[in-house]
Amino acid sequence: MTQTLPVAFVGAGPGDPDLLTVKALRALQEADVVIHDRLVSAEILALVGSQTRLRNAGKEGFGPSVTQTDINAMIVEEALTGARVVRLKSGDPTVFGRLDEELDAVILAGLDYTIVPGLTSASAAVAALGQSLTKRGRNTAVRLITGHDMQGYADHDWRALAREDGVAAIYMAKKAARFIQGRLLMHGATPSTPVTIVENASRPDQRIVSATLATLPAVLAESGFTGPALLMYGLEPRDAVAHALPQVQELI
Amino acid sequence: MTQTLPVAFVGAGPGDPDLLTVKALRALQEADVVIHDRLVSAEILALVGSQTRLRNAGKEGFGPSVTQTDINAMIVEEALTGARVVRLKSGDPTVFGRLDEELDAVILAGLDYTIVPGLTSASAAVAALGQSLTKRGRNTAVRLITGHDMQGYADHDWRALAREDGVAAIYMAKKAARFIQGRLLMHGATPSTPVTIVENASRPDQRIVSATLATLPAVLAESGFTGPALLMYGLEPRDAVAHALPQVQELI
Ligand SMILES: C[S@@+](CC[C@H](N)C(=O)[O-])C[C@H]1O[C@@H](n2cnc3c(N)ncnc32)[C@H](O)[C@@H]1O
Ligand SMILES: C[S@@+](CC[C@H](N)C(=O)[O-])C[C@H]1O[C@@H](n2cnc3c(N)ncnc32)[C@H](O)[C@@H]1O
Repeated sequence: MTQTLPVAFVGAGPGDPDLLTVKALRALQEADVVIHDRLVSAEILALVGSQTRLRNAGKEGFGPSVTQTDINAMIVEEALTGARVVRLKSGDPTVFGRLDEELDAVILAGLDYTIVPGLTSASAAVAALGQSLTKRGRNTAVRLITGHDMQGYADHDWRALAREDGVAAIYMAKKAARFIQGRLLMHGATPSTPVTIVENASRPDQRIVSATLATLPAVLAESGFTGPALLMYGLEPRDAVAHALPQVQELI
Repeated sequence: MTQTLPVAFVGAGPGDPDLLTVKALRALQEADVVIHDRLVSAEILALVGSQTRLRNAGKEGFGPSVTQTDINAMIVEEALTGARVVRLKSGDPTVFGRLDEELDAVILAGLDYTIVPGLTSASAAVAALGQSLTKRGRNTAVRLITGHDMQGYADHDWRALAREDGVAAIYMAKKAARFIQGRLLMHGATPSTPVTIVENASRPDQRIVSATLATLPAVLAESGFTGPALLMYGLEPRDAVAHALPQVQELI
């Protein structure tokens, strides 16, 4: 019988190939087959080994072209041939990546696995703003939330997020933006709360657009975002707050 | 006048040198001086260039040995000499890293900066559990929270966390564990909610210890954790849930 190898679930990071981990880069170079998502950038796919086959498991927006079941089967079939399989997922595979469904399939097929964590897109987005996800005196918690779940627009703990110290990175939020805005305002959020849209974080076509909770739907509509984007709720680009800096003596 | 270079705030990741990003590794190799935290592992510090000076800005637990003000001054002074300065922070510099205070000092000194995001320790910890931070049908949000803030034990939106779908990675939580337990139980959390302690995530001495909300203080006391640790609230190691897997036909 063919000897099987552990399936490696590998995070590709937000898109800049330099934001791959050393471990992820090595896994790509040594793989027999890389089964990748649509969001993984071409620059990263160019780094696979010369012997590596690429298989696209890309799903488009709402209507999946390749179903999750198909992807599960693809991973298992490849691994059962004895191939060194890398399942390459954008960002961190453990963040909104449907990792569990694929892990379950792999385990049920009697296969072993490893997880190579990756940089989630929120880390790249906030760095591009010159901000932190958490900040002393501002917020002691940050949420990673999704605009969509299996039922449609995802419900969240809006009241807590609506508080002054609410900070969140909202994934898959473009279509849900008006819903999110409505919920937050209904729960008492200040309309002037900054919401910064970061599209294609870490990629050459990265775009940062400032909005507030009040202007968010209009800004999204007029800016025509086509790439993956995060809504950074409660955060604005550092340039916009530079005037509010404390005096130099307090700091050094 | 000496020409200054942008100060690079670089994430070192959770400790495994293979979990550095390609960009971070290059920054370490090219730096004239690396000003690092106590939590950055020796294996990572060994990767700096042969010309690179290392400066320890390590702070110990509660009583800072090097104050934040000292660190700010150290960064600025080095950069003003024209040195290529890397400020190396454990994990992701934007997550509980006091990045803003250092950025403010750098900006007020008229210096430029770049931020190289890193893998936050929660990503490594959850991968070690074979779990995801978010999972369809379980949780559509995950929180990164701290056990401590400037006032002492940090207060949080306990009610929301106490709900069945509450999942959080709790940083700097060892001393605050009993407080966190009390708050969550008071707000209705189930005592059997899993809380997994991951110490030294991604390092050779990584340790994973299972507890529940009810047993957490006792487990922490008897396990004697000395390294950095995260409390993974609402998550248990995948092995512990393997028996609860759905049937194979549903998945592939
Ligand atoms: C299915 S989720 C996968 C998230 C991924 N696992 C991660 O950790 O970043 C896809 C969503 O991630 C966000 N995203 C992924 N890459 C991004 C990037 N480079 N810039 C901005 N947002 C990104 C977008 O919100 C997108 O809708
Ligand atoms: C000052 S915070 C810095 C967090 C860091 N910026 C990050 O993104 O991981 C220090 C806390 O991070 C957590 N931590 C850092 N490295 C860790 C590791 N390798 N394993 C477990 N926890 C870690 C612990 O909770 C520790 O008390």
